[in-house]
Amino acid sequence: VDVSELGEFALIERLTKLVGANASPDVVVGPGDDAAVWRSGDDFIIATTDTMVEGLHFDPRISNWADVGWKALATNVSDIAAMGGAPTFALVTLALPKKAPVEALDSLYEGLNECALVHGVVIAGGDVVRAPQVVITVAMIGRAVAGNGEPLLLRRNTAHYGDTIAVTGRLGDSAGGLRQLRFGASGDEVLPRRHMRPTPRVAAGLAAVRAGVTCGIDVSDGLLQDLGHLCEASGVGATIRASDVPLSGELRAAYPDDALELACTGGEDYELILVGSQPALDGVPALTVIGEIVDGPPGVHLLDNDGNQIKFERPGWDAFRS
Amino acid sequence: VDVSELGEFALIERLTKLVGANASPDVVVGPGDDAAVWRSGDDFIIATTDTMVEGLHFDPRISNWADVGWKALATNVSDIAAMGGAPTFALVTLALPKKAPVEALDSLYEGLNECALVHGVVIAGGDVVRAPQVVITVAMIGRAVAGNGEPLLLRRNTAHYGDTIAVTGRLGDSAGGLRQLRFGASGDEVLPRRHMRPTPRVAAGLAAVRAGVTCGIDVSDGLLQDLGHLCEASGVGATIRASDVPLSGELRAAYPDDALELACTGGEDYELILVGSQPALDGVPALTVIGEIVDGPPGVHLLDNDGNQIKFERPGWDAFRS
Repeated sequence: VDVSELGEFALIERLTKLVGANASPDVVVGPGDDAAVWRSGDDFIIATTDTMVEGLHFDPRISNWADVGWKALATNVSDIAAMGGAPTFALVTLALPKKAPVEALDSLYEGLNECALVHGVVIAGGDVVRAPQVVITVAMIGRAVAGNGEPLLLRRNTAHYGDTIAVTGRLGDSAGGLRQLRFGASGDEVLPRRHMRPTPRVAAGLAAVRAGVTCGIDVSDGLLQDLGHLCEASGVGATIRASDVPLSGELRAAYPDDALELACTGGEDYELILVGSQPALDGVPALTVIGEIVDGPPGVHLLDNDGNQIKFERPGWDAFRS
Repeated sequence: VDVSELGEFALIERLTKLVGANASPDVVVGPGDDAAVWRSGDDFIIATTDTMVEGLHFDPRISNWADVGWKALATNVSDIAAMGGAPTFALVTLALPKKAPVEALDSLYEGLNECALVHGVVIAGGDVVRAPQVVITVAMIGRAVAGNGEPLLLRRNTAHYGDTIAVTGRLGDSAGGLRQLRFGASGDEVLPRRHMRPTPRVAAGLAAVRAGVTCGIDVSDGLLQDLGHLCEASGVGATIRASDVPLSGELRAAYPDDALELACTGGEDYELILVGSQPALDGVPALTVIGEIVDGPPGVHLLDNDGNQIKFERPGWDAFRS
């Protein structure tokens, strides 16, 4: 059996079992959520890591290096935001071919630094190794808000029947932007910029845990797939009203026929999906309510205005099967 | 200019400047040492990251996956030991080709878990991505011993004229073992095992900071090169007596003519070089004194019994030039 037969999510499940991290009483969250959390003295530390591989996660012919640097940090910041925490420090590992031009590195670090500055992150160290292609791995450390000696977190496994489902921002712009970039659009246009310079929702995540929301995930693989992970972890179903999925005017204008599909399956939006009681969600500014947690087996149903289910060919991104 | 013209160490220096990490008052040690250190509440957190790339850092034809897993974790534990800290948590990122066999992963995690167990490390999370070859990145978090509200650390820049230079263990076994592996030796033999299953010196590092030693580095690139980094950071010179460099009986027997060169330039020993006053070093068990810090420009002189300098063709490992 090879990993492409297994698929990304069965693979993660297998590796999670192999690790068996709950060995330490200091571990609050082990493998399987957006980030790990452990107790350190009176603090709760959140840690995550994310990798971008040249040719798979970015294409230097269509992204400039500063954008790649921004995004490498931003995806990690988003994982911390998806736990309801605030990012603090990062380690950056670069794998580089011998022939990598030094100017590309300067530009990459410009983007890393810009994203770090905006999110109050300090790049405290890292590693440089040689490799056949550029691989950027960021490990990000953050801190959880604590209340009564316990961390206030957004988990995947705390959705309950009757909860409301809401999202930050607009969905699908990133996938629309990637499509435009592939057809030669400039990186300065609206949708391409949303693809290359995503804004992680740290403030929304912090507001959510302070308002008593305990369930959330970020949209990295696509709304339906990421919400599906959350339903799986919580053992609940979800219905989403297609007409309530927030789409930008730019996306509707560029792809009138595909905007909904891009929003539901495109991924890399780095918006937050927040799940909780309506009063708790009311404490988070600028959310869009898109559906409810329902009884029944885990799974997400996207419904049109007549209550009929809408299905797409590909529900979202699987790194090993796609 | 590309990175191979610049070389690994000029590249690290350039990236260190690009980061400018001392932006936060919580940063105790920024880029440029074995690991980063920052204050988190009353604690001092140490963090490091290290990457192994298939075909460059390991060859699956001569190493089994369990050994690769052990070493991926051990090199990071060694960086924490080289700061005088204790490792606590790790994140493991795997980049895998689609055709990676699942059994190899089981075996890789067996080695990771074994090393984690021995060193009291919890693998708390990670990431899996697709890539053309296997890349294993570990981010390791540790804790520094604190005294009077300040962390007790082994730094590179605290060597002083007159200090004694000592090392843990024996040097060169790893390089000798790699040579034997390349000539078909089994991984169960003594030297190959030292190459594939290095033992990071956590206890020695902790004993050193408790005894008041403040200067050290681990041997990853080779004794002369790593001590050279330390001299550079401290602005001092060093002399090493060749006859005092600790060599194992196995290494002398296998490579009677090259044992000293392997010990001085081979690297991947993951022993600690500790530099301090003789009374402070006396507080660390089982060290071998090999030389002194001397006046003069940064640089390491290896001397034979007549006081003549011994030079080798290649001083150590440079990932981009080698």
